[in-house]
Amino acid sequence: MIGSNRGAAGGGGAAALNPATGEALAPSFSEASAAEVDQALGLASEAAILYGKLSGRSKALFLRAIATEIEALGDSLVERATAETALPAARIQGERGRTCGQLRMFADLVEDGSWVDARIDHADPERQPVPKPDTRSMLRPVGPVAVFCASNFPLAFSVAGGDTASALAAGNPVVVKAHSAHPGTAELVGNAIRAAVEKCGLPEGVFSLLFGGGRTVGATLVKDARVKAVGFTGSRAGGRALMDLAAAREEPIPVYAEMSSINPVFVLPGAMRERGAEIATGLHGSVTLGVGQFCTNPGLVMVGGELDASFSETFENLMRETAAATMLTSGICDAYREGVGRLAAIDGVEALVSPADAAGSAAGAAVFKTDAKTFLAGQGIDDEVFGPATLLVTDDGREQLLEIARTMEGQLTATLHGNEEDLREYADLIQVLETRVGRLVVNSFPTGVEVNHSIVHGGPYPATSDGRSTSVGTQAIYRFARPVCYQGFPQGALPDELTDANPLGIKQLVDGVSK
Amino acid sequence: MIGSNRGAAGGGGAAALNPATGEALAPSFSEASAAEVDQALGLASEAAILYGKLSGRSKALFLRAIATEIEALGDSLVERATAETALPAARIQGERGRTCGQLRMFADLVEDGSWVDARIDHADPERQPVPKPDTRSMLRPVGPVAVFCASNFPLAFSVAGGDTASALAAGNPVVVKAHSAHPGTAELVGNAIRAAVEKCGLPEGVFSLLFGGGRTVGATLVKDARVKAVGFTGSRAGGRALMDLAAAREEPIPVYAEMSSINPVFVLPGAMRERGAEIATGLHGSVTLGVGQFCTNPGLVMVGGELDASFSETFENLMRETAAATMLTSGICDAYREGVGRLAAIDGVEALVSPADAAGSAAGAAVFKTDAKTFLAGQGIDDEVFGPATLLVTDDGREQLLEIARTMEGQLTATLHGNEEDLREYADLIQVLETRVGRLVVNSFPTGVEVNHSIVHGGPYPATSDGRSTSVGTQAIYRFARPVCYQGFPQGALPDELTDANPLGIKQLVDGVSK
Repeated sequence: MIGSNRGAAGGGGAAALNPATGEALAPSFSEASAAEVDQALGLASEAAILYGKLSGRSKALFLRAIATEIEALGDSLVERATAETALPAARIQGERGRTCGQLRMFADLVEDGSWVDARIDHADPERQPVPKPDTRSMLRPVGPVAVFCASNFPLAFSVAGGDTASALAAGNPVVVKAHSAHPGTAELVGNAIRAAVEKCGLPEGVFSLLFGGGRTVGATLVKDARVKAVGFTGSRAGGRALMDLAAAREEPIPVYAEMSSINPVFVLPGAMRERGAEIATGLHGSVTLGVGQFCTNPGLVMVGGELDASFSETFENLMRETAAATMLTSGICDAYREGVGRLAAIDGVEALVSPADAAGSAAGAAVFKTDAKTFLAGQGIDDEVFGPATLLVTDDGREQLLEIARTMEGQLTATLHGNEEDLREYADLIQVLETRVGRLVVNSFPTGVEVNHSIVHGGPYPATSDGRSTSVGTQAIYRFARPVCYQGFPQGALPDELTDANPLGIKQLVDGVSK
Repeated sequence: MIGSNRGAAGGGGAAALNPATGEALAPSFSEASAAEVDQALGLASEAAILYGKLSGRSKALFLRAIATEIEALGDSLVERATAETALPAARIQGERGRTCGQLRMFADLVEDGSWVDARIDHADPERQPVPKPDTRSMLRPVGPVAVFCASNFPLAFSVAGGDTASALAAGNPVVVKAHSAHPGTAELVGNAIRAAVEKCGLPEGVFSLLFGGGRTVGATLVKDARVKAVGFTGSRAGGRALMDLAAAREEPIPVYAEMSSINPVFVLPGAMRERGAEIATGLHGSVTLGVGQFCTNPGLVMVGGELDASFSETFENLMRETAAATMLTSGICDAYREGVGRLAAIDGVEALVSPADAAGSAAGAAVFKTDAKTFLAGQGIDDEVFGPATLLVTDDGREQLLEIARTMEGQLTATLHGNEEDLREYADLIQVLETRVGRLVVNSFPTGVEVNHSIVHGGPYPATSDGRSTSVGTQAIYRFARPVCYQGFPQGALPDELTDANPLGIKQLVDGVSK
């Protein structure tokens, strides 16, 4: 889908597989050729200046039109997405709601217009020793953005997901690489965006959708000089490969890759004593939600002291009774089985619940247990196992907990369960965790990411490539913008956002004072 | 200067050279050993959590104390800096004022506290289908920052310069690598910071100052896992080397390198006709200011149409009459001479003013002329020549100007001279330039960078490593911070900035509304 045209049906294509049945789902999707990638980027590059100057109001109409077109796809989208992902219809419907909600959230943000961080410092011709010039700055789009779809969110982190919505909102054309696990879903959503582009009369290059592999189409996109930023959600290996490609370019560009996280949960002694069974029930729900296929799935539970019997019994029983369920792809299921086997084979790790036997791409829940000493010894014990498995770690007290927090890799989230006394007593643990994660959760669970102004779905490497950013919520727009300063401009040559008249009525920082 | 200790006098050291006389300036400064770098980073890492939790008010006291201590150095600082850099005393005094002004500007910013971008989204337990949690976010420090001093600003971009001030303001310990061209100046300023650390009772690891080479001490710093961000001002080759080292780390980190820029000036036809001689006079001042040793020095002048006779005559005469002056180092002077020779040797480039013969490290001004066709043919014609040289390019009209703007590398600045009609007629040129630079200047000159809220001293690669940032002005603080989200926290466990009571009285975005 190259601008308003369709690419030729070339070679190297493949159909999606229904992960529940293993059957191919027609049609087959051809891999974009190098010439087609070039065309898409040529159109994006051409569209960049005109689209980048579009008013917030026009961009808002476009984003809302995309949401309307996606909703108009109706059941056909739900049916195709469930067939391609084995996710239940209710989940797809919920994800569609979130996807359209995100588009409308960014529409509201850019229609309001204040996100551009307009700053005005007036001239002072009398200043000594030299006159003070008039300077003004605001955020402007970075240029064409390449977006890589995620396997685990066929709508909310795919063709019209958060990366695309925030990049378009900031004023950038987007070229999307579909995920091979749900190409039919991608095509439907791509059609919806295409229809919105046409209805809004925008340049065709604002949006293209390409099919093909990460090492072929994906790498070509990231290496192309016309691409100015990258959004990605996926594996650590995949994200790192894109980071390395981007860093090696003649002009290095930012890559926003959301990659891997084991989202540690710390259960502190008071909470364990008072609410062991309740925490176990909530933890089970979080670990097994969506067959454990969330970026914020809690793969590690640190227990401050002994395991409480009611916690252990409740958690193990719930996990044992959880029915095996089909994962997104056979590849993901194979990786889950491999990861579970790897954990089980580590000296000092005990399997409390082993996954039930399951056919095809179905996976059962797993619980492992070890002590802090074994955990701290490494051996890849903290590598993410993507799926419904978790590792319980018992420790000898505060110092070991702190040591684990200090030495752990960057994470999207860390969660603490504690009563007031626990939180006071472990204030230093919170201070350490603040430096290691993007989001700290108290007395709840990390899955279920709010989409709002204050959410941070990010975190230090390897949780993401760039811990200064979030891929969820309104702040995601800042990934795809950069400040430009205008010095000595007459009012008539300034962008509306920076004029004294402020016709858009946006927030401005005028001579250091918020207006 | 490792925390509160002095390193051992090791080998590999060198004394500064007086660039005007070539004489060595005692004492000799030893290169930090690997063990000393390790100690400095160990202390910085230890200090990070405590310093990162310091209140804005305490950080402000510290930054102001540094400014006071620098001022207390009095004439000894001016004398040493002039001897090491050949810059006149008035310039050093002015730069001292700017340096202390920057420190106090960041003090005001963090004392005010609103820079942390506090965001609060309240819970809604009644929300369907799932209750809405309480989420809050604010910017937190990234961790220890390595700062590389620039040769051309011995104070304002060196030990206590903008990178150090903004990194400290954001709550990060700093380890500075001094520039070998002015180690004595660096030591004096380092002593001032050390005194401020002690007077404020801060952990010693908040600041260390190391001497040594970029490929030794510098590379060791950038590769160390405890360093979380890098600030650098210098050559393109040097900056790119640090970028590549940082990108190849197990945990890649952001590098903010301000590297090279030729700062094109576009003189549009109306302005040329009406104000040719006046523009020539201003241009001469900007090209020769500080022997052309500014990042924003205009190395390229695009003339929209024919060269006006009064412009040419005035500019050439002024440049020819400019006395040769001593550059910062003999190396910089050698590179200038080499660059001037390289330009002169390009087919189609005419030398209008050749540098006067000069002894030692003194350089004379140079003017070259070519046409757009030769310029667009490349041959390294747009490589930065650091010093008082500029290249005039005549073109056949709009299309060639646009083509040059479209194909030029990222720049710190672009300048337009135009009357109202010019600016209307060349609106598309402005639109293209917006995508290529950090700051656009109308009817003035790029040298003389304001230090305020709206300045952008940044720009797309290779002007800087990261066009989303500025190294000057209050927005520079955002380079060294990242957002952290707190979900479900009881009020007592939240940072003051995020509580409902808002005891600091800072700006908060509460449920989407600015308060």
